[in-house]
Amino acid sequence: MKHIPTNAKKVFEGIFFSVWQWEQELYDGTTKTFEKASRPDVSTIIPITKDNKIVFIEEEQPTEPKCFSFPSGVVDEGETPDDCAKRELQEETGYISENIIPWFSEIAGGRVASEYHVYIAKDCELNGGQSLDPGERITVHLFTFEELLEQIEKVPFKNFSLTPKLIKAKYNAEYRQELQELLFAQK
Amino acid sequence: MKHIPTNAKKVFEGIFFSVWQWEQELYDGTTKTFEKASRPDVSTIIPITKDNKIVFIEEEQPTEPKCFSFPSGVVDEGETPDDCAKRELQEETGYISENIIPWFSEIAGGRVASEYHVYIAKDCELNGGQSLDPGERITVHLFTFEELLEQIEKVPFKNFSLTPKLIKAKYNAEYRQELQELLFAQK
Repeated sequence: MKHIPTNAKKVFEGIFFSVWQWEQELYDGTTKTFEKASRPDVSTIIPITKDNKIVFIEEEQPTEPKCFSFPSGVVDEGETPDDCAKRELQEETGYISENIIPWFSEIAGGRVASEYHVYIAKDCELNGGQSLDPGERITVHLFTFEELLEQIEKVPFKNFSLTPKLIKAKYNAEYRQELQELLFAQK
Repeated sequence: MKHIPTNAKKVFEGIFFSVWQWEQELYDGTTKTFEKASRPDVSTIIPITKDNKIVFIEEEQPTEPKCFSFPSGVVDEGETPDDCAKRELQEETGYISENIIPWFSEIAGGRVASEYHVYIAKDCELNGGQSLDPGERITVHLFTFEELLEQIEKVPFKNFSLTPKLIKAKYNAEYRQELQELLFAQK
C-alpha cells in the first residue's frame, strides 16, 4: 500500500477505510506501535466550457452539510485517476471533454494515506445530463474566473489543495494571471 | 461520538482510529452502508513571545517528511482542547503563556470525524526546555510576522485551516492588518 510502511500489517479492512499498524523504531532506539489509515485516492476535475465558463457544483449528500466543489470522486478499484476524473465530470455535470490535462497530484497527508489528483478539462461540452447516484444531489453553476474568485470565500468551499491557490489568485495579480493562462490558454 | 450518526456502529477500534458504519437512507428511498472513521481532536497553538516574535517549529517524525508547523498535538482522553494546547506549547517549544486565547475551531471534515482547535498564546516566556517524546525532533524558529508570511510558501507548511488565512494575509493588506491586530494587540 502506497504511503504505508512495508512492514505494516492491515488490522482492519472496511468498505472505504483500512487501518494499518507497525512497530516503529524511535529516535532513542525504543519502539512504539504506530497506526495509519488508508483510503482510496481522489480525482478532482476543473471543467472549462467552450465559452470559458468554469463549472462549479453545489452538492448535497446525506449526513453532510451542503458544500461547493469541483466534480470529484473516489478512484474505483482498477480505475486510473485519469479515468476517474473523466467519469466524475460526466456523471456529476453532464459535460465531456476531449482535452483533459493533469494539473498536479499530492499526498493527502496526515495519518490518512491517500493521493489527490487534480485535472483541468478544457473545451467542455454538454453530452446528455448528469447520472447521479441516489446518494447525491448536485446543482451545476457556470462562473467566469472572476465570479469564481468572488464566490470562493462566500460559499462553503474547503479544499486542502485548491483553496490556498484560489485565495492567492484572488489577492495576487501575478498569480491570478498565471492561473488564468493555465485554465484558459489554448494549446 | 461527535460528527458520527447516532445509529452508527463502531466496527473497529484501533490505537488512534475508530471506524463506524450505518445504514443510510438515500434520496430515492433505498439504503446503503455508509462508513466514516473518527480520530481524536487536535489543538494547535500560535505562540507570540513578549518581544513579538512568532514561534514556528520545524518537525521531524519517523516515517514522515520534515515539515514546518505551529505547536500542535492530539487531545488526550480526559483532556480539554485548551489544556492540550497549553501542554503542547510547553512540550514542543519550552515556552509558557498566561494569556492564551481561542481563535477558532472547525470540523476537520471529509470522511474522518475530528475537530481542530486553534489558539493564540500571547506574552510567551521560556520556562525550561522542550520535553519531546522519543518520536519527535523539533527545532524552534522565531520569526517576525513579515518573516512568517515570507516563509509560508517556501517551507513545507500545509494546514487545512491556517494556510489559506496566512496566504490571504500575505497578499491582502486589509486582512494582514486584521490578523496582525489579532496576534499582537494587547488586551
